[in-house]
Amino acid sequence: MSTYRAPMQEIKFVMNELAGLEQVAKLPGYEDATTDTVAAILEEASKFASEVLDPLNAVGDREGATWQEGGSVKTPTGFKDAYRRFAENGWNGLTKNPEHGGQGLPQLVATAVEEMWHGANMAFALCPLLTQGAIEALELCGSDKLKSTFLSKMVEGVWTGTMNLTESQAGSDLAAVRTRAVPSSDKHDGSYKLFGQKIFITYGEQDYTDNIIHLVLARTPTAPEGVKGISLFLVPKFMVNDDGSLAARNDVHCVSIEHKLGIHASPTAVLAYGDHGGAVGYLVGEENRGLEYMFIMMNLARFSVGIEGVGIAERSYQRALDYARDRVQGRAPGLDKTVPTATILQHPDVRRMLLTMKAQTEAMRALAYVTGAAIDNAHRHPDADARKRHQAFVELMIPIVKGWSTEIAQEVTYLGVQVHGGMGFIEETGAAQHYRDARITTIYEGTTAIQANDLIGRKTARDGGAVARSVISEISALATAMSGDANDALVPIGNELQGAAAALASAVDWVVPAYGKSSRAAHAASVPYLRLWGLVAGGWQLARGAQVAARLLAENNGDATFYRGKIATARFYAECLLPQAAALARAITVGSESVLALSDAQF
Amino acid sequence: MSTYRAPMQEIKFVMNELAGLEQVAKLPGYEDATTDTVAAILEEASKFASEVLDPLNAVGDREGATWQEGGSVKTPTGFKDAYRRFAENGWNGLTKNPEHGGQGLPQLVATAVEEMWHGANMAFALCPLLTQGAIEALELCGSDKLKSTFLSKMVEGVWTGTMNLTESQAGSDLAAVRTRAVPSSDKHDGSYKLFGQKIFITYGEQDYTDNIIHLVLARTPTAPEGVKGISLFLVPKFMVNDDGSLAARNDVHCVSIEHKLGIHASPTAVLAYGDHGGAVGYLVGEENRGLEYMFIMMNLARFSVGIEGVGIAERSYQRALDYARDRVQGRAPGLDKTVPTATILQHPDVRRMLLTMKAQTEAMRALAYVTGAAIDNAHRHPDADARKRHQAFVELMIPIVKGWSTEIAQEVTYLGVQVHGGMGFIEETGAAQHYRDARITTIYEGTTAIQANDLIGRKTARDGGAVARSVISEISALATAMSGDANDALVPIGNELQGAAAALASAVDWVVPAYGKSSRAAHAASVPYLRLWGLVAGGWQLARGAQVAARLLAENNGDATFYRGKIATARFYAECLLPQAAALARAITVGSESVLALSDAQF
Repeated sequence: MSTYRAPMQEIKFVMNELAGLEQVAKLPGYEDATTDTVAAILEEASKFASEVLDPLNAVGDREGATWQEGGSVKTPTGFKDAYRRFAENGWNGLTKNPEHGGQGLPQLVATAVEEMWHGANMAFALCPLLTQGAIEALELCGSDKLKSTFLSKMVEGVWTGTMNLTESQAGSDLAAVRTRAVPSSDKHDGSYKLFGQKIFITYGEQDYTDNIIHLVLARTPTAPEGVKGISLFLVPKFMVNDDGSLAARNDVHCVSIEHKLGIHASPTAVLAYGDHGGAVGYLVGEENRGLEYMFIMMNLARFSVGIEGVGIAERSYQRALDYARDRVQGRAPGLDKTVPTATILQHPDVRRMLLTMKAQTEAMRALAYVTGAAIDNAHRHPDADARKRHQAFVELMIPIVKGWSTEIAQEVTYLGVQVHGGMGFIEETGAAQHYRDARITTIYEGTTAIQANDLIGRKTARDGGAVARSVISEISALATAMSGDANDALVPIGNELQGAAAALASAVDWVVPAYGKSSRAAHAASVPYLRLWGLVAGGWQLARGAQVAARLLAENNGDATFYRGKIATARFYAECLLPQAAALARAITVGSESVLALSDAQF
Repeated sequence: MSTYRAPMQEIKFVMNELAGLEQVAKLPGYEDATTDTVAAILEEASKFASEVLDPLNAVGDREGATWQEGGSVKTPTGFKDAYRRFAENGWNGLTKNPEHGGQGLPQLVATAVEEMWHGANMAFALCPLLTQGAIEALELCGSDKLKSTFLSKMVEGVWTGTMNLTESQAGSDLAAVRTRAVPSSDKHDGSYKLFGQKIFITYGEQDYTDNIIHLVLARTPTAPEGVKGISLFLVPKFMVNDDGSLAARNDVHCVSIEHKLGIHASPTAVLAYGDHGGAVGYLVGEENRGLEYMFIMMNLARFSVGIEGVGIAERSYQRALDYARDRVQGRAPGLDKTVPTATILQHPDVRRMLLTMKAQTEAMRALAYVTGAAIDNAHRHPDADARKRHQAFVELMIPIVKGWSTEIAQEVTYLGVQVHGGMGFIEETGAAQHYRDARITTIYEGTTAIQANDLIGRKTARDGGAVARSVISEISALATAMSGDANDALVPIGNELQGAAAALASAVDWVVPAYGKSSRAAHAASVPYLRLWGLVAGGWQLARGAQVAARLLAENNGDATFYRGKIATARFYAECLLPQAAALARAITVGSESVLALSDAQF
């Protein structure tokens, strides 16, 4: 059994050299995020991840959360105590407004910390992930009264939050939401009574905290049909008195939890609203604007799921690497024949698998962290144009960070099992748990297809491809510089990146008009287009890293072995993975009509 | 819950039009395999698969096989009875020698039938799969005495067989086998006593039959080190009297079974030999030739695991398609706006996923069946040159059918989950079971890397790439013909196939010399090389299918909707998937050194 270790050197390299922590720390309000403070935070987070969360990961999978007669849920041994420590240590409010008890740190820092939580124990980390989303919704749209009653308790983690979107007939299509919210006739506090059933509610019930704050999509009686008639409500599990103490049990009940492929420790609840007279709910913001609010907070939740992809991929890589260093099997081809046996790390194909895992994980991480820093700049940069530019980059990248990182996490955790050979299929080994846990990430908070729809439509076609092309120009400029670099090690990286950027540009040129005139073919190309973006943007970040590493090597500044590893990893990615860009571009530009050529009967 | 249905129209098309059933039925000894007889067999197999095996698939996953105090194993409800019916119906001996009670049918027919077993219930089908291997070993190398005692009972399925290779220190590397076989001093029947422990023994213990016949690799006291000192022994669970009745319990005991990611109904046993004085075993063939015998039978087992890949992929596709036809969600882009909602089959990305599943499954199937027919020709063709030619093709294809089909089965079952959205992650839906079950197929009977080693070494480099190039010439000739076809529908398929064949040829040109001079880089390229072969060979078979379909359409001969579907599916594969060939070729020819550039410390 291996233990999770935060990849600290790599994380710091990405934060400092690629995401620009120093610049972020100069933004108004982030002055406390000095390199030293951030290093101390990362150190503490790393310890908490390895010492508290990681030891519970396998236990959580084995025991799972269990539904109890009466509607309560029992989380696995140790989880409640770990949550208490997590909240007490202030991890829940890392980026939150200090006015509400948060620490007001940049998203970039939270990105690194969240990666550690997900790497150590994804099922545990989902609870704060969802609470974040609920806090976000309240901060942005809640009344002062709602904020004063609920917000600081949620930021402290004394109460958790949930997001209640899905109903059995309303999954990806939230227009179909049917939960009703009726103004309370017996009260005069502006509250509503909610009736309906929500499914797939992560941590919809738990035994960590005394109260749970549900953010719920529902329709008022006068609401128009479809997406424009959905409002957002806050429904606490227990009513709250004016002094903050808990009052009566509200009429929202967990009627069951799901039996899932992975993340067993995370209870996925079916919640019944109003079976006993109506669940009291408070409107968040204005009526009929619920979906709009939900999308604001969903953006951050989607970004966080992308980080889950990074975390679980890193964990899977570490476990596979530890195994490969230990397991002795066979004679490795091409090595000294007097050595009778070797660890499997000496076998070329095991190296290929591990390097594929490592390179892709580093590419995903760099892209996520760079996007995290852009989120900070989009919020806080003193210059309005710069804010706008960063915001445009963030909007383009969020579906990519979510969609691509989670798809790649499947490949990485798949290889994590494969490196173990037969032992990978045995549950006790632990590699299979990562594979199972990772599987949800391409589904929740919007499937890969939903991310891809967003990417081709709102993020590419709507501005005629302008933002997309400006990012590609940046990639292409880097590629040109590296192709002409005096350092031979950078040249092949630049060359491959140039080809990949050209392939991506051809896809943008196809997507923009296709989205307008033949939207079905554009949608058929959307997921390959998302994967192409991720592939190239990831290669871009690794290439940037290689360029920095080459400079630091030349300056004799730091860990040469590490820097050489960065260059070699970027080159592997460039030569072995980036060639897929042309294949994806061809599938998009030539093959999209053929996706739609079959009639229903021909399937 | 959907039900498995054998894809009969497709299976018959592949058997008749691509694999040449009619020609196979002309081979000496296969005269009974007329189209009508084969159709009747397929019909019966299809019924047995849907009515008997499929209903047990989910039960088997839920209950799993369980180890009982005392060393017995309880299989899930219904499995024992299903096995009895399976054996009684004669399915176990389909291809086996009529002398031993078999039906002497061609491998091509068995290929189709096995696909159905695996599609309906992979965990069940593993038991006959392993028995086949044991029968094969005995038929080829067993003494008359061993054959007369054991063979007909195994062919009838009254007793099952196992293959005992792995020990905890000897997985992919069988040279490390330590189980000892000592000539019995207290008996004078030439028997041995075996001592040691074997792991990962599929159906190493079960409650289907009264006896189990283990084929076991072990070392005699005088054996040389390494692979040249391994012998093959037959060790029955119960000794057998001369009249065929069971005698004393032998000293082989199941000490535990594994808790696995999938195929829960299939007991994976740890077997202890000789803890109570020695397990009586009989030498199969000659001493020290065990590995050689094992490889002969492993070839067929590997081929069967490739068929498992086809079967589980087909099953996953059917389940996803059924769900997509039923599930109503959202408004599909680009369709009539007056229709408020659509089934998800109308969504372009769902069509892309389903078509990716369908096209790849059909490609895998066609390649496997064509290889199955080549096995028959290699055994029975009256012309010695033809036998040799077919044998060479079979040898090249077996690592591809095994390695590529099982890798693609991962992608297909992955998409099978994804089509279901959130429901895919819920175990009750069933899609996740296929995903978990499929996961073992790239590992057992030789991991993908082991197949790829075989492919680059023995199957490509050893003859200087001669057989590989001759197959590529055939592919290329077809591509040329189709590119120039008067039928416009075939032209793009021919064009894409031509590019893919050229990419494959460039990879062969790289692999042959690289294997000689720098074997580590060649090994680093081996899995991409295997995937490239599978991709192109699968596209080749779909292209052949499209060509036949176009001819039959022109002749107005048969189901036009089906034939048009074959052409459209082949075109999708050609335009959307075959472009990956160039990417893989580039990774192989340019990137292989970069796979090996990291030092151990840099991982």
